[in-house]
Amino acid sequence: MTIRIGVDLMGNDNSPETLLDALKELELDPSVELLVFGLPEYKAKSPFKYVVAPEFIAMDENPLTALRRKKEASLAIGLRQLKAKKIDAFISAGNTGALVTGAKVILGNLPGILRPALLARMPTKKQPVAVLDVGANVQVKACHLVQFALLGAAHVRSYGIEKPTIGLLNIGIEAMKGTSELRLAYQELKTIAGNLFHFAGNVEGTSVFNGDVDVLITDGFTGNIFLKTAEGIASLILDRFGSLLPPEEYQKLKPQIHDLSGHLHYAEYPGAILAGVQGIVIKCHGYSTPRAFLNAVRGAVQLVRGDQIIP
Amino acid sequence: MTIRIGVDLMGNDNSPETLLDALKELELDPSVELLVFGLPEYKAKSPFKYVVAPEFIAMDENPLTALRRKKEASLAIGLRQLKAKKIDAFISAGNTGALVTGAKVILGNLPGILRPALLARMPTKKQPVAVLDVGANVQVKACHLVQFALLGAAHVRSYGIEKPTIGLLNIGIEAMKGTSELRLAYQELKTIAGNLFHFAGNVEGTSVFNGDVDVLITDGFTGNIFLKTAEGIASLILDRFGSLLPPEEYQKLKPQIHDLSGHLHYAEYPGAILAGVQGIVIKCHGYSTPRAFLNAVRGAVQLVRGDQIIP
Repeated sequence: MTIRIGVDLMGNDNSPETLLDALKELELDPSVELLVFGLPEYKAKSPFKYVVAPEFIAMDENPLTALRRKKEASLAIGLRQLKAKKIDAFISAGNTGALVTGAKVILGNLPGILRPALLARMPTKKQPVAVLDVGANVQVKACHLVQFALLGAAHVRSYGIEKPTIGLLNIGIEAMKGTSELRLAYQELKTIAGNLFHFAGNVEGTSVFNGDVDVLITDGFTGNIFLKTAEGIASLILDRFGSLLPPEEYQKLKPQIHDLSGHLHYAEYPGAILAGVQGIVIKCHGYSTPRAFLNAVRGAVQLVRGDQIIP
Repeated sequence: MTIRIGVDLMGNDNSPETLLDALKELELDPSVELLVFGLPEYKAKSPFKYVVAPEFIAMDENPLTALRRKKEASLAIGLRQLKAKKIDAFISAGNTGALVTGAKVILGNLPGILRPALLARMPTKKQPVAVLDVGANVQVKACHLVQFALLGAAHVRSYGIEKPTIGLLNIGIEAMKGTSELRLAYQELKTIAGNLFHFAGNVEGTSVFNGDVDVLITDGFTGNIFLKTAEGIASLILDRFGSLLPPEEYQKLKPQIHDLSGHLHYAEYPGAILAGVQGIVIKCHGYSTPRAFLNAVRGAVQLVRGDQIIP
């Protein structure tokens, strides 16, 4: 069975040409087919199936207005093709709000889910942790946080973790810490934990990276700050390390340092999954490197394969 | 003129004995005098001036209730001695809420300041950045964020930066990003920027560490997550580096790695300054190492000296 991955060329910091050049380098399994979505003028340069979109949504546009006015934007066409099952997954590095809202409206939420959330996998000292929400919902209520926990648990279960450990990102481990919504979510998660998941309570930013939780729950504002801070400090440290090592040693270790750096950079990660909608949607950073797009395509293929295995 | 630094022995993860032992190692200028505040039973072990406190406030106590009931807690006595100018600065790693509220009530806020904020200095690729609030106010309004900016500007001005660059920690650089309070604060800061400071707009967690802003403004919840995430990821990376380097190389570089690690760990930093109250109050993490306490004492001495220079 062919796996068809849709890629939105538009609305991010890379030019469509750069992205096309990068995608050409992908060594994909013959069973995987790429479909790219973009303005007519880039069609001639594409060796992939090309879906022409007469317009696109820019980064700084208001998501709701843009979606209403630009029905033929690459992002909207891609989501509609996903809905119509003409593609199996859709990747975009465009306007986050437009992608999230568009997916809710066009694909619909999973039954019982009020708010989809962006889920990112981050490295720890042990196995990676699934963090959500990393940017779909700036403000949330306790009930949304609880739903994020269920979505996160379902996600890591697909990685074989039968009874995941879930933590709430907070400024202290005591139950009374943080905002009122966090305190409510804490009590609710404590109550419903049982066969489905283990609730580890509040987790601080310092200890997340010890790898003691499989899923980390937070609102989209805090989660986004969390993700980008981790990326920023990683870059700072690797930079300092470069100047710390003797030049010949640095040259020798360069491949490993590059590897470690890539591993810690969200931009190099397969992007964030929009959990809670009916379809596989992957959001990359607007400033994603072409390499990150390639990782996103590989990640999407894996997700589709996983989906096909799950009965 | 003698500089008198008060240190609260109680209410943190270290035993008072451990802290006393650490403080003995400090090689302080003869003009600096330490006063320690703690329960009667530790007095005999102290080579420093000892102020007996019959009780203390624990980490998990409700700040308001504890302050009302425990007038003779070490933290409350220390703040009163600061108010009475019997000491020039007070350091505590105890209950954050109790320290902040106690300082507001006992010392009073600076004129025009509604909410004091915890200010931490963090390393970047260039000069350090002053981040506030890192934990005093879980939820804030736009007017509080603007006051944090003025407090932060005043702080870095004492480091010789005449017209500091101020940024707002946000999930995107566009003016419409984030919560409504952030959007309001953005407009307000843009309006009042001029001779006092330069407003750099919104700053993402990825770019903070490039060192392009001198002051980073955020609410106490986000700031605390920001600080602890930076610390957590630093520890993860240094851990990975240890296993990446050949053992003999690692042994050779150990002192530098240790240095870099200390530099990046907030726990090793001089602690956070409570900006906006009438007096020098320094808050260390509850899990501060004894070494961090020593750094806090050194930091306090510098702050007092700076205060004495400013006319």
